[in-house]
This record gives sequence, C-alpha cells and structure tokens, in this order.
Amino acid sequence: MAWLDFLLGRPLASGEEKSERLGTLSGVPIFGLDALGSAAYGPEAALTLLLPLGVGGIHNIVPITITIIALLGVVYFSYRQTIAAYPQGGSSYVVARQNLGKFAGLLAGTALMVDFVLVVAVGVAAGIGALVSAVPGLQTHTLLLSLVVLVLITFVNLRGIRTTGAVFMFPTYFFIVCLLVVLGIGLARMLLSGGHPTAIVPPPRPSTAAVQMAGAWLILRSFANGCTAMTGVEAVSTGITAFRDPRVKIARRTLSFIIGVLVAFLAGIAWICRAYEISATRPGQSGYQTVLSLVTAAVVGRNWFYYITIASILMVLVLQANTAFTGFPNVCRAIAQDGYLPYSFMSRGRRLVYSHGIYVLAFLSAALLIAFRGVTDRLIPLFAVGAFLAFTLSQAGMVAHWKRTGGAHARHSMIINGVGTIATALTVLVVIVSKFVEGAWITLVAIPGILLLMRAVRRHYDRVGRELSSPHPLPTSKLKPPIVAVPIEGWNKVTEKALRFALTLSPDIIALQVSTSDEPHDLETQWATLVEDPTREARLPVPRLQVLRSPYRAVVHPTVEYIHKLEREHPNREIAVVIPQLVERHWYEYFLHRRRGELLAALLLLEDEPRINIINVPWHLRT
Amino acid sequence: MAWLDFLLGRPLASGEEKSERLGTLSGVPIFGLDALGSAAYGPEAALTLLLPLGVGGIHNIVPITITIIALLGVVYFSYRQTIAAYPQGGSSYVVARQNLGKFAGLLAGTALMVDFVLVVAVGVAAGIGALVSAVPGLQTHTLLLSLVVLVLITFVNLRGIRTTGAVFMFPTYFFIVCLLVVLGIGLARMLLSGGHPTAIVPPPRPSTAAVQMAGAWLILRSFANGCTAMTGVEAVSTGITAFRDPRVKIARRTLSFIIGVLVAFLAGIAWICRAYEISATRPGQSGYQTVLSLVTAAVVGRNWFYYITIASILMVLVLQANTAFTGFPNVCRAIAQDGYLPYSFMSRGRRLVYSHGIYVLAFLSAALLIAFRGVTDRLIPLFAVGAFLAFTLSQAGMVAHWKRTGGAHARHSMIINGVGTIATALTVLVVIVSKFVEGAWITLVAIPGILLLMRAVRRHYDRVGRELSSPHPLPTSKLKPPIVAVPIEGWNKVTEKALRFALTLSPDIIALQVSTSDEPHDLETQWATLVEDPTREARLPVPRLQVLRSPYRAVVHPTVEYIHKLEREHPNREIAVVIPQLVERHWYEYFLHRRRGELLAALLLLEDEPRINIINVPWHLRT
Repeated sequence: MAWLDFLLGRPLASGEEKSERLGTLSGVPIFGLDALGSAAYGPEAALTLLLPLGVGGIHNIVPITITIIALLGVVYFSYRQTIAAYPQGGSSYVVARQNLGKFAGLLAGTALMVDFVLVVAVGVAAGIGALVSAVPGLQTHTLLLSLVVLVLITFVNLRGIRTTGAVFMFPTYFFIVCLLVVLGIGLARMLLSGGHPTAIVPPPRPSTAAVQMAGAWLILRSFANGCTAMTGVEAVSTGITAFRDPRVKIARRTLSFIIGVLVAFLAGIAWICRAYEISATRPGQSGYQTVLSLVTAAVVGRNWFYYITIASILMVLVLQANTAFTGFPNVCRAIAQDGYLPYSFMSRGRRLVYSHGIYVLAFLSAALLIAFRGVTDRLIPLFAVGAFLAFTLSQAGMVAHWKRTGGAHARHSMIINGVGTIATALTVLVVIVSKFVEGAWITLVAIPGILLLMRAVRRHYDRVGRELSSPHPLPTSKLKPPIVAVPIEGWNKVTEKALRFALTLSPDIIALQVSTSDEPHDLETQWATLVEDPTREARLPVPRLQVLRSPYRAVVHPTVEYIHKLEREHPNREIAVVIPQLVERHWYEYFLHRRRGELLAALLLLEDEPRINIINVPWHLRT
Repeated sequence: MAWLDFLLGRPLASGEEKSERLGTLSGVPIFGLDALGSAAYGPEAALTLLLPLGVGGIHNIVPITITIIALLGVVYFSYRQTIAAYPQGGSSYVVARQNLGKFAGLLAGTALMVDFVLVVAVGVAAGIGALVSAVPGLQTHTLLLSLVVLVLITFVNLRGIRTTGAVFMFPTYFFIVCLLVVLGIGLARMLLSGGHPTAIVPPPRPSTAAVQMAGAWLILRSFANGCTAMTGVEAVSTGITAFRDPRVKIARRTLSFIIGVLVAFLAGIAWICRAYEISATRPGQSGYQTVLSLVTAAVVGRNWFYYITIASILMVLVLQANTAFTGFPNVCRAIAQDGYLPYSFMSRGRRLVYSHGIYVLAFLSAALLIAFRGVTDRLIPLFAVGAFLAFTLSQAGMVAHWKRTGGAHARHSMIINGVGTIATALTVLVVIVSKFVEGAWITLVAIPGILLLMRAVRRHYDRVGRELSSPHPLPTSKLKPPIVAVPIEGWNKVTEKALRFALTLSPDIIALQVSTSDEPHDLETQWATLVEDPTREARLPVPRLQVLRSPYRAVVHPTVEYIHKLEREHPNREIAVVIPQLVERHWYEYFLHRRRGELLAALLLLEDEPRINIINVPWHLRT
C-alpha cells in the first residue's frame, strides 16, 4: 500500500490526534475560507439588485452593508457563546438537538448538509467560472477543471486536517493581505481627496436614469442577496474539537479574527463602491466584471498588483469549498452517532478524518457539477436558505440552553442569542420569500426528503437492534453437527479437498452431483471405489452420493431445491453447504470458469432459510 | 419467474428437443433468410462498380451473374455432400477440424464467427437504413431503432428455434412471393415485347458517356462485390441437427429450395436490369434508389404492390440477421466443446438454445452498431472475406474427407468439392485483393487475434485440467478438525448463532474482537460469564476471546493479519473463518450495514492461502 501512503500520508493512530490539532493561524484557512471568500460575492449580489436604481442606487449599499454587519455582529456574539457552552462540538445539529429536541436537531443538520453540498458545488464552479472568464481558452473545459479541483480538494482533505491547514494557509493569508491593501489604499485615497477620489480605471457608468424608485421590497431583496456573505460563520463552533487546548480560547480567537476581517472587507467594499461610484455589471453580458475586479482596478489601476489580487480571489473562491469538507463529515458523524445516518459515517479513516462523509460530499457535489455542467449560478440563491435555517435553530437552541442552565450571565447571554434568533429567523423568511421563485423552493423540497430518509434509517437501526439484542449468555442446548452437503462437478482435486474438509466437520455428508442425461453418471459407478471404501477403511464417516437428474439442464436450481428439501426434512439440524471455489490468478481468467459455486452461494443466502450455512473451500489455481 | 416464462416461454426439457425440430417449410425462414436477403444487395453491389462504364456497362451484369450462379451451383453441390457426410452438424469448423486439423478448423470457425457478427450488424443497419430513407422522419433515431430490432431478434431467438421459425415464416415467404411476382411480370413483359420492354417508371439514365473501358480488373471487382450474394449458403449444413428425421433428406430439400429461389432471384434481376437498362444509382447522392426499387418500379409502376414489395424487402434485410443467431451459438458451442472457447458456450438455456452464444453475438453486434452509430456501410466489404474463407476450408476439408473414406462415389464427390475449393479460394483472393483497402484488412487482423485468444483459452483449460486431475481415491490421512476463528462485533444474537455453529465444528474456537481504543473492551470482562461458564458446564469446547488492538481504527486488516498468523503457526491444520452475515430484506438496506464480513471474506479468499476456508453464517433480518 506504499502508493496509498504517498497519496494520503502514513496512517495516524488514534493517540496521535492531539498533534493534529490546530491553532489560530492554521484554523483560519480551515474554518474561515467559506466566510472570507463570500466577501467576493456577497456585496456583488446586493449591488446587482440595485442596478435598476441607476447611479443613485449605489448609495443604498452603505445602509444595507451596515445592517448586514450588525447582523453579523449578533451572530458573532451568539457563536462565541455557543463555543463556550459546547466545547465538545457545537454544530447547529448538536445545539438544536440538545435544547429543542430531535426534530429541530435533524432539521438543522439537514439544512447544514444541504448548505455544505451547495457550497462545494457553487464555490468550485464560481472559482473556475472566474478563471475561464479570465482565460477564455479554457471555457470548453469548465466541467473537467471543476472536477479536477474537486478531486484535489478531496485528496487534500483525506490526508487529514493539519495537511489541509498547511496547504491552504498561503492562499488564504495572501488573499487577506491583498484585499486589505487594496481596500486600505482605496480608503486612504478617499480621505485624502475629501471623499471624492478619482478612479484610476474608471468603472463603467450605470444607466444614469433610474428606471425604478428605491422601494422597501427592492432593498429587502438586495439585503437578502447580501446575506450570502455570512454563510460559513458557524464553521468554527462546528469543528471546535479540531483546536488544541485551551480550546475555547483559541476557537474564539479564530472566530474573532475571521469575523473581524470579514467586517473590514464588507465595510471597505461598501464605502469604496459609494465613493468611487462603482456599481455591479450585468452578469452574462459583454463587459461583465466582478465588483472586486472593478474596485481593485479603480483603486490601484490595472497593473501587476491587480492581477495577483484577482488571482488570489479566484484561488480563495475555489478553496472555500474546503470549509464544507470539514463541516459535512462532522455533521454526518454527529447524526450517525444518533442512528439517523448509516453507521459508516462514524468510522475514522487512516488520517483520522471521517472518510465516508468526505466521499459522500465529493460524490454529491460532483453530481451537482455534472448535472449543471459546471455552471451553478442558479444554485447560489439556494444555499443561503440552508445556512440561515441552521443559524436560526442553533440560536434558538442556545436560548433554551441558557434558560435551562441558568447562572450569573444566563439572562445576558439569553438576550444576545434571542436577538440572534430573531434576526436570523427574519433573514430566513426574507431569503425564502424573495428567492422562492429563483429556486429556494428546491431547498424546501430537499430538506423534508432528507428528514424522511433519516427517520427511515433510524427506524431500521432500532428494529435491527431490538431483533439482535441478546441479554443472556450463550445457549448451549440442542447442539448437533450440521448435515454437510457437497455439490461436486466430477472427480478431481477440488472435489477431494472439499470432501476431506467435510469429513472433519460432521458424520453426515452428502455429495450432490447433477446429471443432465438419463444415463448413469461416471461417478455413480466409481463412488464405492473412490470414496466409500477408503473412508470405511479409515473408520471415517462415509459420504453418500446423491445424483440429481436435471432434464432442464439447469445445474444450480436442482441443487438449491435439494438443499431446501434436506432442510425441511431435518427441522432440528443446521445445513452446511461446502462449495469448492476456484480462485484464479488473473482477473481475465474469471470468465473462463462457470460461476456456478458463486451463484449457488448467492441463491442459498438470499432465500430466507436461516439454517443454511455456506462453506467456501478455495482452490487457488497455480497456473 | 412468471414474467420469464411469458417473455421466453416455459422451459423445455432436453427430451422435448424432437418436438422443436424443423421441416422444410419452417427451415427456410431460419436458414435461408441470410442467403435470400442478400439478393437485395449482391446484384446492386456488382452494378455499382459497373457505373463508370455507362449504359453499356449494364450488359456486363449478365455474364457476371452467370459466373456467380455457376459458383453458387458448385457450392450448392458441395454442401449437399457435406450434409450427407456430416448429419451431426457440418459447420465449416467441424469439417475443417476433422479433415484438415486443428488449425484449419479454428481458422474456419473464427472466419465464421467474424462473418456472423458482421452479418448481424450489417443486416440490421441495412434494413433500418432502408427504412429511414423511406421515412426520413426516423433518421435521427437510426441507432435506437437498430438496437430495438437487435433486442427483438435476440428475444425471439432466446425463445427457441421453433418460435423463431414460426415468427419469421410469414415475412420470408411473403418476400419470396412478392419478388418472384415482380421478376415474373418483368420477364413476361420482356418476352412479349421481343426483348425491348418499356419501363412503366423509367429508371434514371446513367451518364451515357463511358468514362472507362471494361477492363478485366473492373469486371473482377464487380464479380467480387456480387459474391456477397452468396453468404449464408453454409447455414443449412451448419445447423442440420435442428431438422427432424429423415434429417439429411429434409436438410437437402431445404437447401435446394433456398438455392433455387436465390438463383431465380439473381438471374431474374440480371436479365431485367439488362432489358430495362437499369443501372445502379450512386449511394449517398440525391436520387439514390436501391436496384430492387428501380426494378419493381420499372416493371409494375409505383402502385400499392410496389410499396408492399419494398416493405417485404426491408423486413427480410432486417431479419436476415437471424440466420447468424442460429449459426454463431452453434459454432461457439462446437469450438467450446474442444476447449478453445469458455465452457459456458456449451450450456443450453431454458429453451434448448445455447444462450451464451446468443448473448455474446447480441453484445458484439450491438457494440459494432454503437461504434458505427448504426451506419455500417463500411462493414459490408468485410464480411465476404469471413464467409468465403469458411467456404474454402470447408470444401477443402470435404476433399480430404472423401480421400480418407474412399468408397463408390468418393472420386466423383471429391471432384465436386475440389472444384468448389478452387472456386471459393479464388473468390477469397479476389475479394481480399480488391477490397483490401476498403477494409478487408480489418478481417485479416481480427482473425489472427481471435485465434490467439482461442489458443490461450485452450492452454488455460489444459493447465487447469492437469492441475486438478486426480487418478486416485479420496486420501483419508491427516484429517484434523479445523481451527475455527469467529470475528465478532459485540454480544448479540448474530454472535451467538455464529459461536453455536462453531461449537459443532471443532474443539478449537477463537473469537476475534477488534478494539480501537486502549481500554479493555466490554466483552473482555463479560466473556467468562457469557461464554466460558456455560460451555464449560455443558462440557463443550470453551471458545477463547482474542482482542485485537487496532490503533489505526481498521477492523478488517488486523483480523486478516491475525488469521494469517494463525495459519502460519499451525501448518498442519485447516482454518475455518466463521463470518456472521446480516441478510437484509430489501436491497436499499444494503447500505445501512458495514460490509465488513464480505470484505473480510473477499480478502481472505484472494490471498493465496489454500488452508483458509470461509463459513458464512447468515442472519436473515425479520424487520
């Protein structure tokens, strides 16, 4: 397995988990990429809706951004509290489940799962979309590039969380520095020019005539669009167990850093857009540019710094999918622990990550990418629903938590989380209402579907658990050796080996030989010499030969029928069917031998006959 | 399996074979469609090559057709003799193998196999091609229609040979009657008009200026093209066992009928083309019509009778693929009997046909159709090579047969088959040389490839046979009960069942429990109460618990390693690994349980350790 070690790194023992833990510096790339990367499309999404208002509309971005930052502040303080209250992992699922009950928990978990899958698909597609709009020659390979990036991210994540932190550290901080420098220069030039700077590369003028008045509904929708900038904020509290001790302190510091930078990004972008009169351009139309591209060009011009800034943005857009790769497996594991998802989500892989969750996430987002051929613009409105639904349930859960635990600061904390609940619940409503037609309904259909599936999984486990549970010690009565049936095709070493093995197991051995003709089979005449005489001489059990006539030439079915008859005739005995099996050296030899043994075993196992056991006696071909 | 009965008919017993046998009337649709259907493209293929000669070129069709008919006569008499000499089935493979040796036999068999696959692909594609040129709206569905027809033919053939005869009888005789009526009217009008009839619908005039002189090479190539009309003549002697007694007589009568009708077709078409000055039109160019369409329109006009004649031709073109569906499985069976193809080709299915051959033929021709997207014009030149190569080897084999057997008519018969050999051998040469560039080289590459494959298959069977053969009676020394290993996941009824089964097999039982943590496992503390005490009290063997520490959380690999260690430590004992297996009621439940047992069994079987046996103890979930 040397190539596996090379690809995925050497296996890590469970005890090595501590050395895999994160500090603030390595935590930001892992838990912050989703939040920080959304600065690249949140403000743009808000500005696009303001386009019909003309130049005057741009000014609305500042109050909208202030509202979003205020909401972000509420959510930030709420999650600081969640981190302290749930140092063992406070994903929305856990918080809602413990405080609001099973259903609220599963609803939050489902919303998160949907959100994570969409984040991966949209993030990768958006990044690659930006790349191909910069290098149009790659346009035809959009889907292929997206899948390659997806596979790369998957592999990096399978290597474990520290590798991920190390790999993504450079692009993350590079992006933060570039964007902060751009925004800093922009704001400095604004201040120096008394609030009316001139753009180095002037942004395209929006149609000066406002085709519409600034109505409350338009502003509300613009706000809902802008809220996509907030997705990913819950990542730290979800993945808190990945931090090293003092866990709560480091996690809080990481969250503060992420939120601080995000607020700086959002505020800076809003003010610069207003000062430089930068509006969005229509996506899909000629002359389209991202808002960040317009901002950077206006502030520093189209020089080398512009290009490396744009490159760092592209990289972060693609890599923000990574946040979901730590979140999704964690949520699935937590839900699987409660029996609502298959147990395999609980198994840690060789590098201490929950591999199955990573596979499933990669598979689902690849399916989305393929279904949408790598162009997932239409999915963007969907994922705010999942994220904010999870926020709301998590906040509401925290309110219930403080109410239950009480204590000195409980009242104060409850108020913070209560405000968070109301603010995020309102946002969910705004997002659903304003985006229902654009596709938010898909999320509303997917979530109940997944909930039903989870309930079915849990019911299955409950039933199986009840069926299999055994409170008593091993019962030792009524033990008899099995009746051993040995289907054979003729006299050869495989038959010999199977019969010899059968002789060690039981005194009752029946060899089954199917004959498709009415004439006596060779073995019938030779059985006495070949088998009966030697076993009798050695005082061993004497195997009996049973020839099954098969006028329809079937070999497997008469054997199955005979074994069932045997079982019915001996209601107190186990039946053991010894199936000789040729094991070929090469895969292509597989087609050269009739797979009657395997077919027989499969048919016998599928029939609901609990007393029929299958014994595979292998013969490994030497040649 | 009620739906299988409905689809494929009730299973037939081997003894029912006689009632499935054919007479002359039902034999023609089964063995004659290939030969008769080729009248629709043989003359056209010859005429197309004469196009550069202008109107004058048409006259060459008569001598070319006379040559083809003479060759057909030689082949006919040769195969009459083969039928008499090989009433047990005289495919080219059998005749060449018995008289000329292994290599010649396999060469003939391979040539036939290639021929049959091509006949199916080309026949279906040609029929559907003619259909879509009549109903252009279907053009976009060419491939789909071809595959649907292929599936239908496959199902009809899986239902057995009498069903096939019954289904195809009407279209076959309808086609024969229609075409004979058209040719009869045409010849009658020719005689009545003193050899210069006027066409009711005049055929398009070929360019009157001859661009080329009638050279020997052109005539030869035209002859080679026309020879495609002869493929399928060997079908009767190949499938002779399907006829009822007196087998030889009925088979000969069937062959005579087929050849008689074919000669009438070829002669009639040639004379009418000359009399009405009908030449081919260029395929793929506007105004293209098949020669039979031109002939019918010239003789009877474009009335209802024209359309039903054309419809009957289309039907026969499609259905001629059917001949290959009886020939291919027969040839494969004969070759498999000699060990050069997988044994599964020898198994008769529920309706007494060799189902595997039918599947493989359907699969290969479907692959060809898909690869060529339903347009297989380019394959037409290829299949004459296979057919005539098989003819030649079969004829040469007959010469050797007569030489060996001697007898009263041997000399006479030898001369007939000798002439046949020379004529068909020359034709092979002409076809290969004149069609090498057009694609005949593909056949020449495919045939050696298949021959090498067959040799490899036979070698494998020989080696396996030597390895497994056992001349002596069952050895009874050194029999010891196996060491039984029982991997368990915890204490439940499945574990109980597995342990109880193990207790009946051997005194040496080891339960294997993988623990991923360093703390003592629950079972370690309870083993004495749960297992050791009750077994000791009942004077049974006491199973030992072996806990395997797995710091890397793998469950399967430590178990595999331990079992290998066990095997190495006990070089004289068999190991039996009892694997409890949950059997779910529904397929979707499959994903809910970790498949550790199956993975373990697969890994243990794949490793080349002949003393490790697998025992599957099923637990059928009730819920």
